[in-house]
Amino acid sequence: MKILALDSSGLVASAAIVEDDVTIAEYTVNYKKTHSQTLLPMLDELKRMTELDLHTIDAVAVAAGPGSFTGLRIGSATAKGLGFALDVPIIPVPTVDALAYNLYGSGHLVCPIMDARRDQVYTGLYAFRKGTDPGAGYDMAVIEKQCVVDIAQIVAKINECGTDTEVLFLGDGVSIYRDRIAELIRVRYSFAPACCNRQRAACVAALGLLLYQKGIIETAAEHAPEYLRLSQAERERAAKGE
Amino acid sequence: MKILALDSSGLVASAAIVEDDVTIAEYTVNYKKTHSQTLLPMLDELKRMTELDLHTIDAVAVAAGPGSFTGLRIGSATAKGLGFALDVPIIPVPTVDALAYNLYGSGHLVCPIMDARRDQVYTGLYAFRKGTDPGAGYDMAVIEKQCVVDIAQIVAKINECGTDTEVLFLGDGVSIYRDRIAELIRVRYSFAPACCNRQRAACVAALGLLLYQKGIIETAAEHAPEYLRLSQAERERAAKGE
Repeated sequence: MKILALDSSGLVASAAIVEDDVTIAEYTVNYKKTHSQTLLPMLDELKRMTELDLHTIDAVAVAAGPGSFTGLRIGSATAKGLGFALDVPIIPVPTVDALAYNLYGSGHLVCPIMDARRDQVYTGLYAFRKGTDPGAGYDMAVIEKQCVVDIAQIVAKINECGTDTEVLFLGDGVSIYRDRIAELIRVRYSFAPACCNRQRAACVAALGLLLYQKGIIETAAEHAPEYLRLSQAERERAAKGE
Repeated sequence: MKILALDSSGLVASAAIVEDDVTIAEYTVNYKKTHSQTLLPMLDELKRMTELDLHTIDAVAVAAGPGSFTGLRIGSATAKGLGFALDVPIIPVPTVDALAYNLYGSGHLVCPIMDARRDQVYTGLYAFRKGTDPGAGYDMAVIEKQCVVDIAQIVAKINECGTDTEVLFLGDGVSIYRDRIAELIRVRYSFAPACCNRQRAACVAALGLLLYQKGIIETAAEHAPEYLRLSQAERERAAKGE
């Protein structure tokens, strides 16, 4: 099973080609260029480097939201175009879940925090639990489904888990909320290092494979990103009572 | 602190630019092309995409062995050239340690296995332990230093850790030794998924930053890869008693 994966939900642009349990290629950039300038050239680079015949792709996995509205639209539009042209399904992967998957096998709670502007974060809570067979892998349990809240709300949820809890934070919200977390939190905590604290398309692909196996797929026509909240224009229109 | 990192110790070629706790760019390819064809073009691609001025690099981290002899020579020679030209130190990162760092924060034993041919593996055993401060990160403890052994020897070491042990395997040796592990192992085990089961230069950089802070650096002239065993030519010469 060969999956092409994209994540442009945040500042990071990332593309990957994953076949079963091997990442064939992954390219990730966290730089000021906009995703409309980077995402397709990155994919083209991977295609060229791995001599990829796009028609061997079985599905397109995409970080389907929440995240930057513009970023999500670019990712989803690209995924829809690829899915339509190649006649393969789209696997919509929840952005925060894919971010948490960076810390596969963590022995502790995982809390991604993405800056959602307006003093809010896109976040959720996750834990990795081993399957019952001696050789079974870890399932990622969703303790708190991805949501948009203020940082105090998610830290309160973590504190409610009890004093034995230990939590690992990651995501672009860390640099903004590091001091606020330290102030509010009542359990042991830490922050993930550079190699596993941002969006990666290989995580979207690996988690996407599990969703595909559960039948969580869409056609290119059906797929739309999940913004989790109204856009600024929609809010302004609602405020005007239009 | 800006680190340029390279890993060409196995089938994977990977390059990354990491600044403090953020991966600016990473490019990883696991494809049949040889590293002499891929590594520098990949680095050039990252440089171009992130408008990187190479003279802003503070150190070059490299997966310094063990691994494929040819791969290590290409990685180390590239690192030496860059270090010499830019007048920055080399951070020699043990290959197996960097591979284990993929599973940062794991609650369990981590056992990378790289195919070393001749019925042997490059391997080691690692565990992540939280620092004592409430907000401290995890230190990766080396339980068994990287070594070249047969698979039965490393599995025996794991079995000795007691029946409560749980271990996560990763690396290109998994596909070769999966059945043999299942046969020999007496504790709960599993295999890491596609997003975190192979060499990544961002892991070399993140671990390299910690080594740099401990003063583990070399000049470009001093640096040489650590093969951990004799080359085929050396073995044949020794067998002839030369």
